[in-house]
Parts: sequence; structure tokens; C-alpha cells
Amino acid sequence: MTTAHTIAGTARPGPGATGLSIAERYRLVRDTTERLAAPLSAEDQTVQSMMETSPTKWHRGHTSWFFEVLALRPHCPGYRLFDERFLFLFNSYYEALGPRHERGSRGLITRPGIADIARYRHHVDEAMTDLLRTEPDPVLSRVITLGLNHEQQHQELLLTDIKHAFAQNPLAPVYCPLPADRDDPPAPPPRWIQVEGGLHWVGCDAGTTDFHFDNEGPAHTVFLNDFQIADRPVSVGEYLEFVEDGGYRTPTLWLADGLPLARDWDGPAYWEKRDGAWFARTLHGRLPLDPAEPVCHISYYEAQAFATWAGKRLPTEFEWEVAARRWSDGAVRHPRDIRPHPGPLHPGFDQDVWEWTASAYLPYPGYRPAPGAVGEYNGKFMVGQMVLRGRSCATPPGHDRLTYRNFFAPAARWQFSGLRLAGEIQ
Amino acid sequence: MTTAHTIAGTARPGPGATGLSIAERYRLVRDTTERLAAPLSAEDQTVQSMMETSPTKWHRGHTSWFFEVLALRPHCPGYRLFDERFLFLFNSYYEALGPRHERGSRGLITRPGIADIARYRHHVDEAMTDLLRTEPDPVLSRVITLGLNHEQQHQELLLTDIKHAFAQNPLAPVYCPLPADRDDPPAPPPRWIQVEGGLHWVGCDAGTTDFHFDNEGPAHTVFLNDFQIADRPVSVGEYLEFVEDGGYRTPTLWLADGLPLARDWDGPAYWEKRDGAWFARTLHGRLPLDPAEPVCHISYYEAQAFATWAGKRLPTEFEWEVAARRWSDGAVRHPRDIRPHPGPLHPGFDQDVWEWTASAYLPYPGYRPAPGAVGEYNGKFMVGQMVLRGRSCATPPGHDRLTYRNFFAPAARWQFSGLRLAGEIQ
Amino acid sequence: MTTAHTIAGTARPGPGATGLSIAERYRLVRDTTERLAAPLSAEDQTVQSMMETSPTKWHRGHTSWFFEVLALRPHCPGYRLFDERFLFLFNSYYEALGPRHERGSRGLITRPGIADIARYRHHVDEAMTDLLRTEPDPVLSRVITLGLNHEQQHQELLLTDIKHAFAQNPLAPVYCPLPADRDDPPAPPPRWIQVEGGLHWVGCDAGTTDFHFDNEGPAHTVFLNDFQIADRPVSVGEYLEFVEDGGYRTPTLWLADGLPLARDWDGPAYWEKRDGAWFARTLHGRLPLDPAEPVCHISYYEAQAFATWAGKRLPTEFEWEVAARRWSDGAVRHPRDIRPHPGPLHPGFDQDVWEWTASAYLPYPGYRPAPGAVGEYNGKFMVGQMVLRGRSCATPPGHDRLTYRNFFAPAARWQFSGLRLAGEIQ
Amino acid sequence: MTTAHTIAGTARPGPGATGLSIAERYRLVRDTTERLAAPLSAEDQTVQSMMETSPTKWHRGHTSWFFEVLALRPHCPGYRLFDERFLFLFNSYYEALGPRHERGSRGLITRPGIADIARYRHHVDEAMTDLLRTEPDPVLSRVITLGLNHEQQHQELLLTDIKHAFAQNPLAPVYCPLPADRDDPPAPPPRWIQVEGGLHWVGCDAGTTDFHFDNEGPAHTVFLNDFQIADRPVSVGEYLEFVEDGGYRTPTLWLADGLPLARDWDGPAYWEKRDGAWFARTLHGRLPLDPAEPVCHISYYEAQAFATWAGKRLPTEFEWEVAARRWSDGAVRHPRDIRPHPGPLHPGFDQDVWEWTASAYLPYPGYRPAPGAVGEYNGKFMVGQMVLRGRSCATPPGHDRLTYRNFFAPAARWQFSGLRLAGEIQ
Repeated sequence: MTTAHTIAGTARPGPGATGLSIAERYRLVRDTTERLAAPLSAEDQTVQSMMETSPTKWHRGHTSWFFEVLALRPHCPGYRLFDERFLFLFNSYYEALGPRHERGSRGLITRPGIADIARYRHHVDEAMTDLLRTEPDPVLSRVITLGLNHEQQHQELLLTDIKHAFAQNPLAPVYCPLPADRDDPPAPPPRWIQVEGGLHWVGCDAGTTDFHFDNEGPAHTVFLNDFQIADRPVSVGEYLEFVEDGGYRTPTLWLADGLPLARDWDGPAYWEKRDGAWFARTLHGRLPLDPAEPVCHISYYEAQAFATWAGKRLPTEFEWEVAARRWSDGAVRHPRDIRPHPGPLHPGFDQDVWEWTASAYLPYPGYRPAPGAVGEYNGKFMVGQMVLRGRSCATPPGHDRLTYRNFFAPAARWQFSGLRLAGEIQ
Repeated sequence: MTTAHTIAGTARPGPGATGLSIAERYRLVRDTTERLAAPLSAEDQTVQSMMETSPTKWHRGHTSWFFEVLALRPHCPGYRLFDERFLFLFNSYYEALGPRHERGSRGLITRPGIADIARYRHHVDEAMTDLLRTEPDPVLSRVITLGLNHEQQHQELLLTDIKHAFAQNPLAPVYCPLPADRDDPPAPPPRWIQVEGGLHWVGCDAGTTDFHFDNEGPAHTVFLNDFQIADRPVSVGEYLEFVEDGGYRTPTLWLADGLPLARDWDGPAYWEKRDGAWFARTLHGRLPLDPAEPVCHISYYEAQAFATWAGKRLPTEFEWEVAARRWSDGAVRHPRDIRPHPGPLHPGFDQDVWEWTASAYLPYPGYRPAPGAVGEYNGKFMVGQMVLRGRSCATPPGHDRLTYRNFFAPAARWQFSGLRLAGEIQ
Repeated sequence: MTTAHTIAGTARPGPGATGLSIAERYRLVRDTTERLAAPLSAEDQTVQSMMETSPTKWHRGHTSWFFEVLALRPHCPGYRLFDERFLFLFNSYYEALGPRHERGSRGLITRPGIADIARYRHHVDEAMTDLLRTEPDPVLSRVITLGLNHEQQHQELLLTDIKHAFAQNPLAPVYCPLPADRDDPPAPPPRWIQVEGGLHWVGCDAGTTDFHFDNEGPAHTVFLNDFQIADRPVSVGEYLEFVEDGGYRTPTLWLADGLPLARDWDGPAYWEKRDGAWFARTLHGRLPLDPAEPVCHISYYEAQAFATWAGKRLPTEFEWEVAARRWSDGAVRHPRDIRPHPGPLHPGFDQDVWEWTASAYLPYPGYRPAPGAVGEYNGKFMVGQMVLRGRSCATPPGHDRLTYRNFFAPAARWQFSGLRLAGEIQ
Repeated sequence: MTTAHTIAGTARPGPGATGLSIAERYRLVRDTTERLAAPLSAEDQTVQSMMETSPTKWHRGHTSWFFEVLALRPHCPGYRLFDERFLFLFNSYYEALGPRHERGSRGLITRPGIADIARYRHHVDEAMTDLLRTEPDPVLSRVITLGLNHEQQHQELLLTDIKHAFAQNPLAPVYCPLPADRDDPPAPPPRWIQVEGGLHWVGCDAGTTDFHFDNEGPAHTVFLNDFQIADRPVSVGEYLEFVEDGGYRTPTLWLADGLPLARDWDGPAYWEKRDGAWFARTLHGRLPLDPAEPVCHISYYEAQAFATWAGKRLPTEFEWEVAARRWSDGAVRHPRDIRPHPGPLHPGFDQDVWEWTASAYLPYPGYRPAPGAVGEYNGKFMVGQMVLRGRSCATPPGHDRLTYRNFFAPAARWQFSGLRLAGEIQ
């Protein structure tokens, strides 16, 4: 292990440069949500298939509510609420913004229907367009940028949530057809990247990017040992070996909390064995497993059990970030899937994956939530969850960052969550 | 049975006389279902608000499935199933008809959507219309008549289930507007009808009516003591006295099983206190309580506690039937609500009520379920439930009979369930 | 009741004649409880293995509490409570007697220990002995007789509850050794007794026996069809045929409520298959099944499914009583097990069984619970339970009556509950 | 923040020096367990008051089982198991050591009774004493030392578990009387210790102490920012201010997962308000709150909410360890309670507390569980739990270490768990 490092050499992320005005970005993000919802019927948009998911309709309403209560109401004198009762209906979890509808009952709200929601969005968009005719002041600008990133997060959830809902339907509905040219080359054996330890600068501060969530900062120094990390996530083919080696039936591979779950599982979420062959439920319907793809829809418990079985471990979130930053600097390949991120939305489903890390989701040194409702965005979830890094095929293009900290409970499987192996250097 | 009895004076129900062909009745019943569903959006028709209820969409599909598997498939050679997968999706509980979709997950099936369901109904209706161009043989005729009565039961459930779903929505949706001319006269004090005991003939046998459910027979003799019974159900005004006298907070009034529930209740289902005034959620939206109406949406526990509080008891199902039969013979007034049953559907909601009796839902002497799937219709539910007699404002006109045995678990409250008082003659 | 009936030939039960003073009966019953508890260690007497059962220690305390609060405190001026806190700890379910310790937490009360309980019983017994030096007035006498019958019921529960607790222990503890001379003859094929229908007098009124529970009255007339009934309960050997014929895996045999339970069961409670052979956990430890014994520890659902499988049905409680009364009048054999009831306690365990009937546990016509705490004894449980008739090997000698109505929820299996078949006469 | 540090100056813990032979230590630890159980009756030792706790009797058996299966069976040829069935009964969670009795049912095992357990312990102790007549080889020595530390952990659990069981008893049993001389001085205001950041050496490696658990290593370097930390835990008096300021009713103070729990709580576990005054259930029975004592029996959620309310935060486990090491080196005061640890067992109950840290319980860099059953000791619990540092009044003297990592789920409150505040240096 190397002992001393100067932090000076540690790369800092440069400022973003999207080249769009905030009004243009607003329109772009809002339109994307509608495009994502477009293939879904009124019935599809209404259901909530488990406590953790939400109806499409609710995502569309809640993201509009966010602009209404945090941008329009405080910053736009004379703004008329579309429907006062929506304050209750579309508040997700903000204690500072009053009472709210019970989370597990979102799927029972049949009215407002999707036509009402479309009107709600239109109402908000018109007011926002008016508001953005003049350049917003920095405070408002920050709120709107947060709102747009918030909406992008819900775009991803809209997809993972409808995937979960469709998976409850024995008729295997299709969200969008499988692109004809999908033809993945076999996954090459992973290469192991060696990363030197020492002091590293991680996380994100104001000014270093156009936007980052508060949980990505303060940027700070960490000390890492030398480590190695694979240059791509674990593939379906590799994971299938674990499954067929009895991985789910070998108690000593599992964390104690995961073991009772493992006993009920035969493979990742959405895998189905039919007449001896494995299939997966995807947004394109039921498809045969593709061994070349990254495995996904696994829990932290499965990621950890697989790594143990493979004689490796998960990287910490800082190992992941340090390795990713070096790579994206050009020194080495990007530590995520080598295929370019799918530009158009549909072709890439079920391919790019969030990667579970060995790090619990906790505040960075010196982190303080912002005062008020915005401070509830991230901080109050900092217990009982694990950090995932990277992005998935459902992440809106441009929404990802090397310092981005996604987080879910260790049992969660409905996200596009996979893993990348790491290990010590002997 | 060896011994013969003369049950002098005991009325036997006469044959029905609707005057319609079976094809006409088929069309009438099927159209009524569609009319009932018409005010409901695709979103409304999709949700299931608790295990015991079903989505509108499912009711529409399941009643069609009934004709498909019990009439068309066995009796119509060459009949093509609309969609083979619907056999699984729309089987409710018939073990003899193969596996079925999990009851509690009906609200997660977004596809088939309501347009698909309409096509399904049309497909079945066309085949049934063809089939009924010639008079069906008695076996088929019985199955179709059962199917029509079955669909009428689901028409009532369609209404009670959507009422329950809407009640979960804080925005208080309206199924249909309140008729303008609704103006109930105050409920007169109940009169007490004296009924002489002795041997009575109850229940229903084949031949005595056009149709009855198997659980209404065999007709048989019972011995009753003298009793008295009120000439109308308990009113909202009377029940409110019980509520305001602390009925829900007086443990000694309650059956042991009902007491933990009573502690969580403040009044009947759908009652809400707002700013000190009582309202009820109805199919017309949220309305102030009307003291003149029969109380409804109460459990058996509440019916029993009210009767104890009032120093009375519930009638048994045979007392109810005997009293009702005398009345409808002209000797006395009909033991149900004196107002004529509302002809058009909408005006009567929330007025006429099913009446909890003191009788458990058990087989009549000599009852045997029919062989095959039809035998599962009623018999396998004969434990843990109480009998309700009468009909409700949601019961389709013509579907009720004096021997009709409705049954629900003692905690159920989402039906239009009320009570009528009875007592001994001192 | 106004009309008169001659119930020619209907036997009325004669007065009991035990020949003991109430003080002698008090001592006898109280001693029996202690003898039943004697084989149990302090640890044994402490545990509660499910919500429905109670610790031995609690039974010993609660039966003493009954005399303390209903006999000594009101009738014995100057009586000093043993420990005021026991009023809370040992009240079972009497709302009229104040708050009480949570039923499901009885097994967490380690103190008072069994030595304290012995002192408590001694304290109560001394005071009661003093009180009974003079003949009690009728009111007190009735309360004490109720207390003694109450304690006898708890003697039976003490045995069924410890049997359940021991069954949770993989070490298969023994309550008492199996008597050496136990050697049952094979069960002869059942004979079918024909009983003529008509009007019958059932139930029990004050004055016809020394004692009966209030739920056994008022005596009243019922009308029965002709029926037949087996002269003995179903045997283990017969039930085993049902098991091995796949009875538990044939959905159409089961009531809908029982089906999910049946899927988790392979046979009666306490049956265990080890290396291909059936055993039962008994109070004598783990024993091979004895085909000659009556089957027991079955739920109502199993009783009903067995009867359906056998092409028969369960008798109603009135059929059972009428048949039993005729038999015990000498006309026919007693409708329960032909073996004499085991005089000494131990030899007979697991042999004589309560018999599920087809009757729900409901009030008899004209039944009114007594005012005050005593009125809570039976009446408030009259919903959701089925009646069992007869007695079991654990019933204290002399405690049974032909009109006795035992009752349990249809899923209950920890009582010595079996069944007897009945049927129509074709 | 200071940027560069040389690790050389970081103190390493010196080797322990107890001066006792392993045979003497064996006897000492084993005797202590029996002394702790001595005040408890057979009844007390039998119950399990929640899933997470175990009966005293089970602790006594399980710790003996540990020596039996890991020391005697493999290392003592010819050793005869006391009872083969105990292998099943007293295995806690070791998958590698075969099946085991269900954790939640430990309280239903009445036999073996406490006399049997005493015989079991005697049997194991005799064999161990024989085995230890000669100095064990290093492998065996490590196993026995692990067994002794394991038993010490169960000594603490024995106390916390019986405290929880007694707390379910409305009669408020006393484990041991309150010492007469208990008279705490008022807690002085906390002093804030400033600690310089930089690189620090934390954790424990083989050779640096006589014994440490595997989760305390490998020792490794961490980078810390400057921080400050209080010189004593938060007191009852301080916590009471939080309670009375409405801390439990202020949602914005709480982590989202803790909020539903907070709504059901009014204060720490075991606090009871009686007639307006606060009491706590302790091992000495019910006592008035002592404002001078450290607050304990709080969850991580409460610790975090209190710290937020106080404008501070919890220290990380490394901040805690670094501060504690400096202090115990003499530079500053020891960071735990200033009162000397109570030498004799009883006087100190409810005083010294484990301290929740801001660190999740995760493996140290390079941590690998040992192969075989011993590897299951710690590693498989490394998810979903938070680290506590320090020791409590129930920790056996000599069992604590500065590198000791205790860990519990964030909702756990039945341990003697409190908190110490930390913060940044502005």
C-alpha cells in the first residue's frame, strides 16, 4: 500500500456545459416525461404494484407539484393553484410542506384521471414558461434546476415502477417493442484495473458542476488502500453460473438478513424459468436471457453473495468514484459498460445498470441538509440504505455524474441494479 | 323424510312471471352491467381497494367468462375463446375450473384495458345471441339463468366496490349526481308486528319459482316461538342516538370479536365527522346524514350491539322470512322499507338495505351442492358468515326473493347492510 | 310462547345427584387442579405457546381470582385480597370487572412464580373454606357452583394447553407416562342409528339439573327431519384413509376458508411422519398412531372435509343431542365412545373426543345473558364459532352433560376435537 | 482542516495483561454467568419477551454448547456429548454447524429446565477443566479465548434480555435491590474536546492485544477532518429537555425510517410517566428518573434526532476511537463516563452506556471472515446495523476495548445505548 499522496493531483470534475437556456431545459425535461408516459394507457398509469413504487399518473402529478409549491407559489405573485387539493395529493414526503396522502394508497386514486393530469401539467408549464421569459435570479434558478433533476429522477422511477407493475400481470404486457437491431456481442472477460491507494479527493462542491445533489458534498479527502476493480459489471452469463452452482441455496454465502429472502428466490427479480429455460420480464415483454448483458434487478444481498462466491468483494463508493474518474480522464477505460450510452431512449432498456457498492448511505463529513423543505430531499434517508453508483439504461441522458449517489434498501430489486467486482491487490 | 306434515296456512311462493324470453333477459341483464359501468373512467374501472372488492373491469370480464366457460364452451361446438389467457384471469374461485389469478392482485391488471373488455363482452354476447336463436334445452337454460342471476349479483358488487374505492379518495368522487327531487319524509316510529309461532315452511324448492339459488333450498319445516318484528329497518336517526350515547365505547354491548374493531370505529363505514357535523360518503359524493334513511354500511357486530343497546335482538333468517311472507300476502305490510323500490337506478342509492339476521350461513337440512363447478357457487362458503335478508338499493330490480340468502363475514361493512329489530312477546 | 305443544316422548334430563356438599365439591375440584399441575415444573407452568392458550400458572391463578372477585369480595365482609395487582393480572376477559393484562402476553409473567400461586390458592381456599362452614344462600351457591364448573373447564384447558406447549419442543416432553395396560381393541365398523324426525325438546332449563351453563338454555322445541347417525366417532384408521387418499390435496372437499390451511397441513395437529411412519405427539410423549382410537385434534374444516369425502355430513347439535338422549335412556347405545370413561385421570388421554357439529354457536331462542360480569361468561362469544358436543378424555369426570355446548373457532385444533358422521335417511 | 499527518505518531493499543492462566479465566467467566443467573427463578429464566432476546436458560445453554462443539468435540477425543439433541437446541445461527431451533421459539422450551442446564454446564466444565490441565495449543487456545469472550457477550445480553422481560410485567419485578449508597452527583456541563484531523491508525491487529474480535481488524489508516467531541455522554436531564421540547413530535428532526416509531414513543424505552412524573423501569425495579445519569435505552433514531435538535451530530466510530485513545493515553480525559466503572456487578446498572456512532457496521478494508463456523461470528451481520462504541454498565469488566465494535439495528432500544455529541470545528 502506498502511504502518502498529494491531493493536488486528484482530478476535479469540470463545469457542465449543456449550452441550453433554463427555459429550454425546462421544456426538454417536461416533454421527456410526457414521452415516457405516452405508451401507457389510463389503466397502466393508475396502478401501484407495491409500497415502494408509484403510479405513472402520480409521477406526472408530483413533479408538477414540485414546481408549483417550490417555484411558482413563492416566486410568482398571483399564481393560481390548479387545484388546492393537489397540495395534499401530490406531496411525497415533505414534512415541511404539510400533510400528504398515504404513500401506499397512491394506486387507489382514480380521479384526477390522466386527462386531468395532462391539464395540470399544462397549467404548470404555462406558468413556468411565463416565469422563465426573464432570466430567473440565482435562488429561483437553483430551485428550478433542482426541480428538473428531480423530474429526471422520477423519469427513471416511472420506468422501473411500470416494469414492476407489468411484471405482476401474467399476460406479460409490453411497454415498447424490442428494437430490431439489438445484437449484443458476447461479454469479453473482465479486465482488472489496478488503482493505487493513498489520499483521494471525492465528492462534489458548489461551483465544480452546474448541478449536484446536496448528498454529493462536501467534497473531502479519503484515504484508500490499493485495490483492483473490474472494467465492466458482472454479466448475466456469469451470474447464471452462480445460480446454477446453487448460490441461492448456499447459506454461508449470504448476509444473515438476506438469507430468508434468498430462500424464496431462484434468481434476480423478473427472471422466470419456463420449461427449463430462463427468461426475463423486460419493458419489451418476456425475453430469453441474454448472457452478454450486465445482470440487473438484484438486491444488495445478491450482489454481496455473488461477490463472496466469486472470491471478490464489492467496491466502496469511493473506490468506485476514484476508479471512474481516472478512467474518464482518459488514462483508462470508463468503469461502466463499454457500450456507448443509448442516445434514444428505448433501445437501451435493461442494459446499463446501477452498481451496488459496499458503502452505506451516510452523510459526508460536514454535510448539513439545507433548511426548509429542500433539506428533506436527501438527508432524512441516510440510514439503512446502501449506495449505488453509475447510472442505468433508464437514467435520463445527462443526468448522471461521477459523484452521483443513488441509494436503496439492501433488499430492493426493482431498480436496474447490478454489481461490479473489486478486490485487494496481493 | 318419513313423517308427513300439514303446515296449514303456510304460504308457498308462487311461480315468477317476468314474461320475457331468455334471449331478451340475457340482453337486458348484460346491458344493465354496461350501463352501470358507463359513468366510470378507465382509471376508475381498474382499481381494487381491498381484498374483498374487485375492479369494475374485472366484474365485467368475470361475468362474461362465466357464460364462456359454462355455456358457450360446453354447449356451442366450434366456439372460439376470445383469449385463452382469460380463463386464468377471470376465474374467481372455481377449483373445478383450473388455476386462477390471485384474488388480491386483481387491481394490478392494467391490460386488458376497458376497450379490450368491451370487445370481450361483445364477442361473448354475439355468440350467446347466436346460441339463443333457438330455445335452449333445460340444462343449458338453467346454466344461462344462473349466469344472469350471477351477473346481477356482480352488478350489485360493482356498485358497492366502486363506492369503497371512491371512499379511499380524499377528493370524494361522485359516481352519479344526487337526484334533485330526493326528499325523504321523516321515518315514522316503527310499528311492532306480532307473529305467531309454531311450524313454518321456509326456503325454496325447484318449481316454486323461476329461479332460486341452491342455498335457498331444500324448503323445509322449522319450529318458531312467537316473536315480534319491526315494520321497518333502523333509521340513521335512531342509530345516531346509539353513536352519541357512546355505543362504540361501551364494551359490554359488543361481541368479543367485534370489540377490537369497535375501538377503531366511530360510526358506520363512510361516516365522516367534519367540523362537528356528520357526513356520509355516498355514490353521489359526500352528503350530510339523512336521519330518515335506513342506517347502512354497518357490520354484524354493530347491528348486534345496537340491538342490545335498544333492548332488542336481531330476527333469525326464518323469523324474517315468515314475517315477510305474511306481509307480502297482504295480511300485513311488507317488512322491508315501505317506500317503493326505486325503478330507475340512480335515485335510490343508499336507501334500501340488506338486513343482518341472527342466523349463521349454514346449509338447510338435506342441502347438497350440485356436482362440478356450479356446486362451488354457494356451498363452500358455509362457515364463518352471517345471513342477510331483503335487498338493497343496489340490488337489481327483480333479483330479490323472500327466500334469498345473502351472506357476509360479520366484520363486512362495504355492502348496503343495515338491521331490523325483533324481540320476544312477553 | 302462546301455542302449546305436546312433545310426546321427548325425554327431559333428570336432576343430578352427586351427593356431596358444596364444601366437599369445592375441595375436590380445587385439589384436582393441583393434581393436574403437579407433574409440571416451574418452567412448564410459565409458557404460553400461542394466543389461544394460557400458562398452567395462569389457569391456577385465574380460577382462584374467579372465587376472589365473584364470591369472596362481594360475599365475605372483611375479606383481604391476596394481592390487589392480581385483579389486573388474572382477569381473563370480563369487561365489567375492569382492565386486564393483555391476553397474548400471559407467558411473559414470570412473577408471581408457582410458589406464589400456590400461596394465592391457599389464601383463597382458606377463606372459601371459612365461608362454606355455613350453607351458602342460593345466590352465593350459584356463584360458587359456577366457579367450580369454571375451574373444571380450565382443568381441561390446562391439559390441552400444555399439550400444545410441549408439542413446540423438539425434545417431545412427557406429561405422564403411558399406562402399561393400554391396549385398545380394533374399532368395530360403525353402526348407523336411525332417528325419527319431528318435534323435539332440547336444551336445559333451571331445575332440570343441578347445574348448567346459561348457553344451554332456554330449553325449547326444534323440528328435525329423520336422520341417521353413527354409533361412534370416526377412528384414526378411518381418517388415515382420507389422508392417504389425498384428502388434504383435494380442494373441492374443503370449505373456502379452510383451503389455505389445508394446504399447510398433512394431517391432524400433532401428527408427525418420521421415516415414512405416522406418529402423534401426546401427553405421554411421541407415540405411533393407534388406528382404533377416535381421531382428534382436527379443525372443523377437516371434520367437514372428511365427512364430504365419506359421502356423509356432520350432525347438527340438536340431532346429536336427540340421538344421545335416546341412547342414554337405554333405547340405544350411547352415541359417544363405547369404552367407559376413564375413571382415573391419566389412562384415558387422547381417547375420548369432542365432536364438531354442523351448528354455529348462537343463542337459543329467548336466551339473554345474565346482568353483570357473569353475563359475559358465554354470550359474547356467540359469533364465528361452531358447537362441539360430548366430552373429551380431558374433561373432568362429571363435568359433561347431554346439553353441554362447547364451542371453538373452526380452525382450532388444539382441543381433543374429532367428529361423528351423520346423514339423511333415503 | 489540517491536511497532512504522519501515521507514526498514532498510538497503537498495548498488549493486555490479565495475569491469569486460561484455566483460571475459564473458571472466572463461567462462574460469572452463574452468578448473574442466580437471582432469577426457573420461571424468570424461561421466557423470551421478543424475537431479539433470549431466555436466561438459553444463554446458559448456548454458551456451553459453544465450548462443546468448537472446543471439546474437535479437540478432546472421546468426549461424550451431554445430550445430542442440544446440538439442535442451542445452536444460535451457525449455518456451518447444522440446523437449529427457531430463534423466536426459544421461550417455549420448558425442558431442559434450569436444573438440567446446571447439569449441562457442569458436564462441560468438567471436561474443559480436564482439557485445560495441560496448556492448550495455539489453535485451541484461540477457540477457548473466543468462547470466553463470547460468553461475556452473553452475560451482557442475559441482563438486557431479562430487563426487557421484566419490563413486560406490570408488577415491575426487581432483579437486584438498588444499592443504598447510590448517590450520583449532578452531571457537570459537558466539555468539548478538540481533536486535530489528518491520518489516523484505527482498529486492531493480531498481536496488539491478547484478544480482539475479527471485526476490529485489519488495523488501517483513515483520514479525518478536525472535530470536537463532548467529554461525557448526554445525560437524562439533557434528554428530558428534548422530550419536553416536543422532540418526539417534531417530524423534521427525524430520519424518515424512525418517524413512524417516534410517533409511538414518548421517551426512551422503559420510561413511564405516572401521575405526571417520569420513572424508569430498571433492574432495581421502577425508579424515578435520575437527571445525572447518562440517558440510555434509546434507538439510533432517537440519538440522531437528539443530536439534530442540539445542533450537533454523532461522532463516527473512528472519531470516537481516536478521541478515546488520546484520552486514555493521558493527554485528555477518557471520553466515557467519568465515574469509575463499577467494580462489583450490581451497583452500576443503568449507568454506563454504549454510544451510538454515525458509522454503519461494515467490514474494515481487507476484512475477510475466517473459514468455517467461526467466520459466521461477525461478518454476516455487516448490513443494516449501526456501530456503538464504549461499553455499558452491563458489560463484564475487562471485556471492553477502545477498538471494540458493538452493533445493533437502528431501532433497537433494549441495550444500554446512549449517545455522545460531536461536531465540526468552525
